[in-house]
Amino acid sequence: MDFVVTPWEVEGLVDYEKLIKEFGTKPLTPELIEKTKELTKSELPLFLRRKFFFSHRDYDLVLKDYEEGRGFFLYTGRGPSGPMHIGHIIPFYMTRWFQEKFGVNLYIQITDDEKFIIKPEMGLNDTRRWAYENILDIAAVGFDPDRTFIFQNSEYTKIYEMAIPVSKKVTFSTARAVFGFTESSKIGIIFFPAIQAAPTFFEKKRCLIPAAIDQDPYWRIQRDIAESLGYYKTAAIHGKFFPPLTGLTGKMSASMPETAIYLTDEPEIVRRKIWKFALTGGQATVEEQREKGGNPDKCVVFKWLEMFFEPDDEKLVQRYEDCRAGRLLCGECKNYLIEKVQAFLREHQERRKQAEPLVKKVKYTGKLAREMWERSIPEELKEGS
Amino acid sequence: MDFVVTPWEVEGLVDYEKLIKEFGTKPLTPELIEKTKELTKSELPLFLRRKFFFSHRDYDLVLKDYEEGRGFFLYTGRGPSGPMHIGHIIPFYMTRWFQEKFGVNLYIQITDDEKFIIKPEMGLNDTRRWAYENILDIAAVGFDPDRTFIFQNSEYTKIYEMAIPVSKKVTFSTARAVFGFTESSKIGIIFFPAIQAAPTFFEKKRCLIPAAIDQDPYWRIQRDIAESLGYYKTAAIHGKFFPPLTGLTGKMSASMPETAIYLTDEPEIVRRKIWKFALTGGQATVEEQREKGGNPDKCVVFKWLEMFFEPDDEKLVQRYEDCRAGRLLCGECKNYLIEKVQAFLREHQERRKQAEPLVKKVKYTGKLAREMWERSIPEELKEGS
Repeated sequence: MDFVVTPWEVEGLVDYEKLIKEFGTKPLTPELIEKTKELTKSELPLFLRRKFFFSHRDYDLVLKDYEEGRGFFLYTGRGPSGPMHIGHIIPFYMTRWFQEKFGVNLYIQITDDEKFIIKPEMGLNDTRRWAYENILDIAAVGFDPDRTFIFQNSEYTKIYEMAIPVSKKVTFSTARAVFGFTESSKIGIIFFPAIQAAPTFFEKKRCLIPAAIDQDPYWRIQRDIAESLGYYKTAAIHGKFFPPLTGLTGKMSASMPETAIYLTDEPEIVRRKIWKFALTGGQATVEEQREKGGNPDKCVVFKWLEMFFEPDDEKLVQRYEDCRAGRLLCGECKNYLIEKVQAFLREHQERRKQAEPLVKKVKYTGKLAREMWERSIPEELKEGS
Repeated sequence: MDFVVTPWEVEGLVDYEKLIKEFGTKPLTPELIEKTKELTKSELPLFLRRKFFFSHRDYDLVLKDYEEGRGFFLYTGRGPSGPMHIGHIIPFYMTRWFQEKFGVNLYIQITDDEKFIIKPEMGLNDTRRWAYENILDIAAVGFDPDRTFIFQNSEYTKIYEMAIPVSKKVTFSTARAVFGFTESSKIGIIFFPAIQAAPTFFEKKRCLIPAAIDQDPYWRIQRDIAESLGYYKTAAIHGKFFPPLTGLTGKMSASMPETAIYLTDEPEIVRRKIWKFALTGGQATVEEQREKGGNPDKCVVFKWLEMFFEPDDEKLVQRYEDCRAGRLLCGECKNYLIEKVQAFLREHQERRKQAEPLVKKVKYTGKLAREMWERSIPEELKEGS
């Protein structure tokens, strides 16, 4: 093993084919991608065209459920322990596409409970503050305000009720096998798998979780017990990791600022970080580059363009060839990426500034949010005094 | 103290002394009982006069807090897995006395989550149905409807928020040491100590838990972590066990109907059970009884009278002496107890029939209940849409 993928660490250059075998998932086939195109009557987005999503569980059944009118719903989440970076937000833009095209409900769990429990230095007030900041970013993505419910576990505590039946099905040894608990694990984190699985039971439809493949083990527990609870095993569509600026291995890390572009970074910071830290596949000198060409397969700048920032397929291929042929210098590519990232952040930050009323809707007053809160308030209190 | 030399104190004395040492609690001294009388400006109730409560943790500090104006609050609970019997309800009548005389808030946790998780054969609907039935019985005791909050964990899920900080302080090995968890324990029950401790943090005052002494270990975890959370270690006042009909050892058990009188038992059932199952200290024949006398120290009938059903001290002492002297036959005592229990149940059942509106108050609309629910509903939803 020259790479390690568990929910808590991603190291080394990832062999995605190997991961599919290891995790026991299925490859996202051209047929399924074609089927998605057909059902959504839409052009395929970049992240499907370019196999950012590469693996799945029961995505075929999700499409079947949709086709036959049973529908499905989306579920994803965020652990609010710090500012969000580009690697965090891109999956939400992808999720938005699914919601838009299929017109389905989306639940977003903000795990301010889990982050508080596992971070010794953090108070619940800290993770709640980050929850507030992160939700602004997530709302800025622009989900359907009447079909989206963003909830913090420590606030939408109805989640506990739904976690109870889950928690009756999972033994300590099962949970430990997946999460690696020890004698000194806190009882809060031992319970957390039940809280995390609970939203997959929000509706009596199939749940689709778009997530990086390292999250897959969490859902194995859900899939083991779902049917005995009278629900569907959750489906998932697995994404690749958005690589850190500093290399194609590992994940962007909020604790290593040089590896990541934060959503709040100023344009000048973006320029400096990409210019200084982005690893490319270039040669040592301009002359060598002109002569031998660069290697885009080893270039983070190219990877970022491929994964998100260059939606134009022709331009991307052209860039690949120009690089290989020595017609492009790394500085040119960096500048191009810098402009793309700056433009993306400008728009994102603009939407974020205006996201307050949207946050209120997706958390409390939108159609879906209101339904979810209604479920948690006893009839006697709805009547008034 | 009128009862220092009475036989029933001497009887249990050695065992309960031992328990105090074993559990590391403190004896409830005559001084503390006297202080209670003084502060409440009331006659002492039977269960203090006769040392039904015999041990405590920090009850002295509770009285001090009360005396100096800081106040305190009461917390107790019930696991709703079946019908309640007399042994279950008597502590609630005692708790009512504390509430009445000190004028304090009382929180009653109904653990429909825990019972569901530990009973393989029960659904959440079953424990909720029992919760409904049990709460009717508890409300019938007649607590102050504006100072009492009865809540079911699966409904008042705000409890989860309060359990989160607790659950960050307790490791698996600590919880296992107290609760005896194993590899196959469900993750829900491993988390439960946090849910159970959470109400001790409902107010920034000292919490007083009236409970049988066997519950004490549960609160050790709370006492270990409370101060690090900025709260008081919970206080407790420990009761003896109300013995089963069939003997002075063990506890009444809902799963052995011959040992217990249920709150819903008809008068005729009460008569038959006591007549048939109650263990006495009588002799084999009437003649022998007249000659040698009975042994009230080994008699469940006498114990029940002593612990709850004969409030008149003089009458009780008289009965003790008459029994020893052979002037009483067991049948006479049984008939006396039968009448007392029937009268108690008649009144209790009458109040239970009318308890519906009271239940609504203590669960939802009374002053304290409303405050507790208000805390769990986000501002945005209180405003209306």
